[in-house]
Amino acid sequence: MEKIVERGLLYDFYGPLLTEHQQAIYEANAYDNLSLSEIAEQENVSRQAVHDILKRCDKALMEYEEKLQLIARFNRNRGRLKQLKEKLSSEDDRKLVDEIIDEL
Amino acid sequence: MEKIVERGLLYDFYGPLLTEHQQAIYEANAYDNLSLSEIAEQENVSRQAVHDILKRCDKALMEYEEKLQLIARFNRNRGRLKQLKEKLSSEDDRKLVDEIIDEL
Repeated sequence: MEKIVERGLLYDFYGPLLTEHQQAIYEANAYDNLSLSEIAEQENVSRQAVHDILKRCDKALMEYEEKLQLIARFNRNRGRLKQLKEKLSSEDDRKLVDEIIDEL
Repeated sequence: MEKIVERGLLYDFYGPLLTEHQQAIYEANAYDNLSLSEIAEQENVSRQAVHDILKRCDKALMEYEEKLQLIARFNRNRGRLKQLKEKLSSEDDRKLVDEIIDEL
């Protein structure tokens, strides 16, 4: 990848491909900002296991992006759509563009 | 899924997530229209193995769609973009919409 993609964005796109257990640990870390020890206690696994799972998740999410390039395509299309939106005068058309962006 | 998504479309979206071996067998079947026996000979595995791999690939591809819904989103956004394109008079804007659709 050309640059490091933000973790949150990778999770937004590919999170559903992780197991439920991985998702719980990833969200506890990335969204709830829990420490590794706190997650370990909550999930009833060792601190080292949490560390390894998070590392494996990050690797898996980056590999999904390398293979599918959804985020790269999303960024390019969002740019094009914003460009298009600026030229549209009809409120309905502009709303339609927003719907498209939301679902990219 | 509400309806059966076309195999080719599933492979277009999620094929890169299959292993290289799975991709070779899937393409031999779906694109080159080789028989199971022909693929078995080409890949140096049994006919039954080819059958099982193809079945496993179809299942994996459908599960990816269930989780990520890329094709459902693609279809909805393609519809919106075609609707938008019909209203555009500028040739450049219409070209831009085509670029977006190509990269969905």
